[in-house]
Amino acid sequence: MTADVTGGVPIRLAGYRDHFNALFADYFDALAQQRPSRSVFVPEALELVRDMSLRGGKRLRVALLHEAARLVTPDAVPGLDEAALSIELLQTHGLIHDDIIDDSPLRRGAPSVHHAYRSRYPDRPQTALGLAVLAGDLAAFLSVQVLLTAPVPAGLRQAMAAVQATAGADTVIGQVLDLERDFGPPPGREALDTVSDYKSARYSILAPLRLGLLAAGEDPAAHDHELARYARLVGVSGQMRDDYLDLFADTAVTGKEAGSDLREGRRSYAVCAVLEATTGEERALVESALAESGCTPETVARIQDLARRHGVDERLRGDIRRSAEEAAAVAAGWRPRWRAEAVDFFRQLPLWASQHVG
Amino acid sequence: MTADVTGGVPIRLAGYRDHFNALFADYFDALAQQRPSRSVFVPEALELVRDMSLRGGKRLRVALLHEAARLVTPDAVPGLDEAALSIELLQTHGLIHDDIIDDSPLRRGAPSVHHAYRSRYPDRPQTALGLAVLAGDLAAFLSVQVLLTAPVPAGLRQAMAAVQATAGADTVIGQVLDLERDFGPPPGREALDTVSDYKSARYSILAPLRLGLLAAGEDPAAHDHELARYARLVGVSGQMRDDYLDLFADTAVTGKEAGSDLREGRRSYAVCAVLEATTGEERALVESALAESGCTPETVARIQDLARRHGVDERLRGDIRRSAEEAAAVAAGWRPRWRAEAVDFFRQLPLWASQHVG
Repeated sequence: MTADVTGGVPIRLAGYRDHFNALFADYFDALAQQRPSRSVFVPEALELVRDMSLRGGKRLRVALLHEAARLVTPDAVPGLDEAALSIELLQTHGLIHDDIIDDSPLRRGAPSVHHAYRSRYPDRPQTALGLAVLAGDLAAFLSVQVLLTAPVPAGLRQAMAAVQATAGADTVIGQVLDLERDFGPPPGREALDTVSDYKSARYSILAPLRLGLLAAGEDPAAHDHELARYARLVGVSGQMRDDYLDLFADTAVTGKEAGSDLREGRRSYAVCAVLEATTGEERALVESALAESGCTPETVARIQDLARRHGVDERLRGDIRRSAEEAAAVAAGWRPRWRAEAVDFFRQLPLWASQHVG
Repeated sequence: MTADVTGGVPIRLAGYRDHFNALFADYFDALAQQRPSRSVFVPEALELVRDMSLRGGKRLRVALLHEAARLVTPDAVPGLDEAALSIELLQTHGLIHDDIIDDSPLRRGAPSVHHAYRSRYPDRPQTALGLAVLAGDLAAFLSVQVLLTAPVPAGLRQAMAAVQATAGADTVIGQVLDLERDFGPPPGREALDTVSDYKSARYSILAPLRLGLLAAGEDPAAHDHELARYARLVGVSGQMRDDYLDLFADTAVTGKEAGSDLREGRRSYAVCAVLEATTGEERALVESALAESGCTPETVARIQDLARRHGVDERLRGDIRRSAEEAAAVAAGWRPRWRAEAVDFFRQLPLWASQHVG
């Protein structure tokens, strides 16, 4: 595909991101005023939730939300700011607890909340764990609370909060499925897609779509089947891309060591594709790498080589592109019903994202 | 006080509890039908959340909810069942995460969710921890979701969900304050009361009151100062009673070993009262018991003795009674405005609860 098809996407993303980041900082400033005085731990917890939240990234979810409202109207829509805060607080909740679950020391180039607490209370690892669990819990409740106090009619608040409570519950189910994926026999494609759908598509794609439409006065329930299908395809394509990059990316480009899924025994799309493509000694090598936890860079390099020899990299790129194109086709079908420029955004977004697989 | 003042309380509690326990079991039955097929971990997580939830106790929060509605009307009030489910799911969320924070093996006479997972996955403690965190998260989101789908007008759903999101966030703050209490210099009475208020009164007393009034068509905001004051007093009295029993209760009666707060370094009301009453060698004994983690039954017995010698037990019983009486006085002031028989329940409840200090 050519650059001009998707050229507008990054510019639009940057605009939403800059607006949102200022809003998010203001939100935390206001929050810090409301809490019980004379505590040291409470402001510290809020500070760590804030730091994690503001270490933002692309804010793709926020862009999806605003563009979903633009499907209906080009005008300013009340409630979108609170919806954006809710979406990103739910994300913060997920990141904090995810880093506990994976015992990850780093997130977005800085210490995870759990490890930040561990450095602060080196003699009390149990307290550090507890405080990190609580920081994640706080973000979850704030995520719902910010919608329920939005300056919009009560009916809209309740509908938006219901979207987020469902997204929260579904994401937890997805995280459980994600842990299950690494037990028992290797999962098939359908099972992997279900993990991607629950674990990321529902809160990252589907919920912002629903919230944007709701705020703009459209009932998303009438279109829920298509919205869910679009979200699942984009989520699958995005997860595949992450998994592809984890195995095949050039460390010099990404700055990350390749093969973390292999090292941590995670049955990603890429890892499963390698397992499926190999037999005998080759497969045994992959399986032992998964089992041993922390395999060497040499083993990762050997697995990359054999995966390329079996055409796994090319097959994955094809799968990523296909899911993205199917998603784009779903969005293209929104043309007569919704505003063309926003429909174009949803059509271009998966294609743009799928380009970034090198 | 005489038994007839508070004689009606336990009977009313039992009625609400039996109705609720059947409702709660039905809720989990329906929930189990909705989840992704072919997963083993998801039904397992739901089962553990269910087991913890149904290991119920007195269901005092549910009784407060129903009686709050009865302040306004003796008629059946739609939305109370969903409010009760929300309240008890929030409680389940708190218990599951609390047991992770304290690394407690047992809760209500059976394994905590964290330890149940540890026994199931003995080789994967990190997975067990992760699944327990997620089980708690799931209960939190379900707690909000059940209100947002209640068969009542959208405005009421949103108002009730807002109460619970605030209660959830406040409780997390309370848990953080609770961990902070055991650092730095011993907290004074005001600081201990703030912990009790945030950690338990707000979700256990204040939220059920607000929800019951809302469901019955009354705006709790108009009475929020009194409601919050009643809740805080009942919460303080209840926490003091728990802390008193932890230090002074007869193991033969309670079935629990006395002194768990001392052993685990927790600066409870009772522990702080002993610290305040002692100096020199006696105080050093208490401080070293708190610091050493896991002091012997002999040390606990010595501390009980010296606490009694200094009149700490009697002083605590006085404080418990005083808070209960103040709470009862607040409730008595609701007489002209609200229905007498429900007002009597709120008046009697703290007195009834405070009797159980032996």
